[in-house]
Amino acid sequence: MRISIIGSGNVATHLSAAFKNAGHRIVQVYSRNMQSAALLAYHVGAEAVDDPAVISPGTDLFILAIKDDAIAKFIPHLCAFNIPVAHTSGAVSLQQLSDAIPNAGVFYPLQTFSKTKEVNFRDVPMCIEGANEAITQVLENLARDISNHVYQVSSAQRKVLHLAAVFACNFTNHLYSIGEQLLADSDMSFEMLRPLIAETADKIKGHSPATVQTGPAVRNDERTMQAHLQMLQQQPHLQDIYTLLSQDIIKNHIKHNGDK
Amino acid sequence: MRISIIGSGNVATHLSAAFKNAGHRIVQVYSRNMQSAALLAYHVGAEAVDDPAVISPGTDLFILAIKDDAIAKFIPHLCAFNIPVAHTSGAVSLQQLSDAIPNAGVFYPLQTFSKTKEVNFRDVPMCIEGANEAITQVLENLARDISNHVYQVSSAQRKVLHLAAVFACNFTNHLYSIGEQLLADSDMSFEMLRPLIAETADKIKGHSPATVQTGPAVRNDERTMQAHLQMLQQQPHLQDIYTLLSQDIIKNHIKHNGDK
Repeated sequence: MRISIIGSGNVATHLSAAFKNAGHRIVQVYSRNMQSAALLAYHVGAEAVDDPAVISPGTDLFILAIKDDAIAKFIPHLCAFNIPVAHTSGAVSLQQLSDAIPNAGVFYPLQTFSKTKEVNFRDVPMCIEGANEAITQVLENLARDISNHVYQVSSAQRKVLHLAAVFACNFTNHLYSIGEQLLADSDMSFEMLRPLIAETADKIKGHSPATVQTGPAVRNDERTMQAHLQMLQQQPHLQDIYTLLSQDIIKNHIKHNGDK
Repeated sequence: MRISIIGSGNVATHLSAAFKNAGHRIVQVYSRNMQSAALLAYHVGAEAVDDPAVISPGTDLFILAIKDDAIAKFIPHLCAFNIPVAHTSGAVSLQQLSDAIPNAGVFYPLQTFSKTKEVNFRDVPMCIEGANEAITQVLENLARDISNHVYQVSSAQRKVLHLAAVFACNFTNHLYSIGEQLLADSDMSFEMLRPLIAETADKIKGHSPATVQTGPAVRNDERTMQAHLQMLQQQPHLQDIYTLLSQDIIKNHIKHNGDK
């Protein structure tokens, strides 16, 4: 399959490499920044372009891997071609594309990418949506070429997925950060906490998180919780976070196990 | 070294195995429950006892691996021996032991243990505190026999460590659980989120969490945050958690990077 990539950021970089490794041909890489386009194009053996006017119709699929806000603005450059177009965003609906492009789809990798960190794409969940059977099938086949975990996900579900990821990943990272700050304030290194964080993430690989919850809240250990709130009295915002999350853990525990 | 273990739960089980593997001899395992004492004693080649009156003074160290509440009650059974005693709790101060036992210490493994899951003790941070130089040295040597990560931590620091672990691990697990519930409500499997959770935990192995924060809050993406709050309107408690954590991420980001 011939694929052209619009964008040269993290998603564009990792996706193009995965396509190429799966035997597909990357025709063009477009970026507003020629240097950035050229770098990625070089790695995947494609032509680099920085002018939308020279984007070639000699391809089977356009992958839009650009910022959410930029997607709508880019549609006019592609809609005349009558070639399938898929965006890679978790938050943009299919309709934003399909109103202008009949063969529109979504090709959303549910993973966080850094340019310098290798990702095994076979483990990345690929969320697919198509405006019609044909494009859905094209995207599903392509997804299976690079990943073992392909899901058909509606635009409404994709929104929920994104929200769930904010809780389970973005907020989680912030809790790591709070832990780091608390340790630093008492002259301790975040290093001490890293193995416990790794084990916490590892534990849920085979379990539902609600069933492996530990800590003072799930034991309803009032004394420890009060002591913790006392320690946080100079940081009322952390007290609020502590209280809200503890209450939610207790509520959840009762919901799953009944009040004893 | 001859070591006797008071307790037969997760910490007792993993610690005794680690001591034995490091070449130490486990003399006795005490538990109120004889079956439980016998099972662990069998695995580590020790004698099982369920009566405090038959605890033998023929040992070099007692390790108390029992519930926090039970520690104070157990002291009378050991204080006549004049043998070093260390507890393994994150929350109990050294003083609770050292008031009654001169050679008192703390031997706290900062990790979450499950009986059925193997733990590589060499990676477990060991937090050591002693009432005097001699016991501190004994515990530090013992800790180095089983772990590569040994820290001298005061009782006050240990409390902070425990609080930081509640944020970075217990609360984190609850955020996983919220993610699972959100997906379930929209007919999606938690399986989809697992790779992203794994990568989020993996990312901070080499970085300070504040420097790798992602998501709508750190981008100050008001539109996405409003859309998320809208989706949660039937779950006001989750709205509160979302708002509080997002505010804290924004505040933290400004603190680290300045307001632009």
